[in-house]
Amino acid sequence: MGGPELERLIGLFAKLPGLGPRSARRIVLKLLRERETRLLPLAEALEAVAASVRTCSVCGNLDSCDPCMICVNPARERRICVVESVADLWALERALIYRGTYHVLGGSLSALAGRGPEDLAIASLLERLERDPPEEIILAMPATVDGAATGHYLAEKLKRYGVPVSRLAQGVPMGGALEVLDEGTLATALRARRLA
Amino acid sequence: MGGPELERLIGLFAKLPGLGPRSARRIVLKLLRERETRLLPLAEALEAVAASVRTCSVCGNLDSCDPCMICVNPARERRICVVESVADLWALERALIYRGTYHVLGGSLSALAGRGPEDLAIASLLERLERDPPEEIILAMPATVDGAATGHYLAEKLKRYGVPVSRLAQGVPMGGALEVLDEGTLATALRARRLA
Repeated sequence: MGGPELERLIGLFAKLPGLGPRSARRIVLKLLRERETRLLPLAEALEAVAASVRTCSVCGNLDSCDPCMICVNPARERRICVVESVADLWALERALIYRGTYHVLGGSLSALAGRGPEDLAIASLLERLERDPPEEIILAMPATVDGAATGHYLAEKLKRYGVPVSRLAQGVPMGGALEVLDEGTLATALRARRLA
Repeated sequence: MGGPELERLIGLFAKLPGLGPRSARRIVLKLLRERETRLLPLAEALEAVAASVRTCSVCGNLDSCDPCMICVNPARERRICVVESVADLWALERALIYRGTYHVLGGSLSALAGRGPEDLAIASLLERLERDPPEEIILAMPATVDGAATGHYLAEKLKRYGVPVSRLAQGVPMGGALEVLDEGTLATALRARRLA
């Protein structure tokens, strides 16, 4: 029902992460009810992004300029925070605590997924270090098996550059009630305990 | 981060029903990672829908032709199923059981929301009845207070046309375990019980 154009649009929405046929129909009906204020602006915004947003050739961030606004900002500290994805980079930026630059790997090493070092942006990271050595490298990998493996691999690779390499702390997350935390997090938090 | 175009796109996604800033960012990153297969097709599909889809001047359905494919289909039975919204019409079509036509009211009567008969597509329904009386009118209102009020109002209005008026049955939904059903549904199902 609704004609082929509508079916196609619902199908495209339904394949987006977190959506399905039901939520896609709900969204499309909403867009059609508010054509001028929602449907057309969304179509235009998608085209603007497609036309303007590119991957930063230095760090791998997404931005409408290349190098990105973070890489060209002279007020940024000369540290590099290595992250798995642009989503992780944005999460750290939202925390408003880090003032350095980034390097997006594009994934973690994964034996299961068959992803080796050559599939990640590691060569470009090493080039950056040789061209312009930073004061510190922070490995901000996720606390997963693959994330840990990637961190170990990078720490080993980075040794010979003589730059301090650090990792994110692991422990109880903010607002985390102990009773709902997994054993791994509890064990890590206990092992890494500090004097109060 | 990501530039003004990206911020704007995320903001538009975040305001869609069922989405928020977090899911909007996830969707936009996915779109950017698959620019050719997702981002551009979605932009094109939105424009195609904006250009082609209109409200059926007979029944209020959304389709790329006017009158819609259901209204112009001569194989459809000469019944009118009155629904609140296009979403409800689509839900009935998906059930593949109804072979008549529809009439979309555009809402229910609601004292709280200040919606009276003149705010719904009731005049156009009465015109349809006078122009071309159907064999039956089915009131497929939701089982809510407003839905019931709208059904009663319409049943009263429709009396003088001499057309049979029916309602959807109410009772235990398919797969509905009794212990999780609300008291209202249980009471209705018990009152409307039938010989086994």
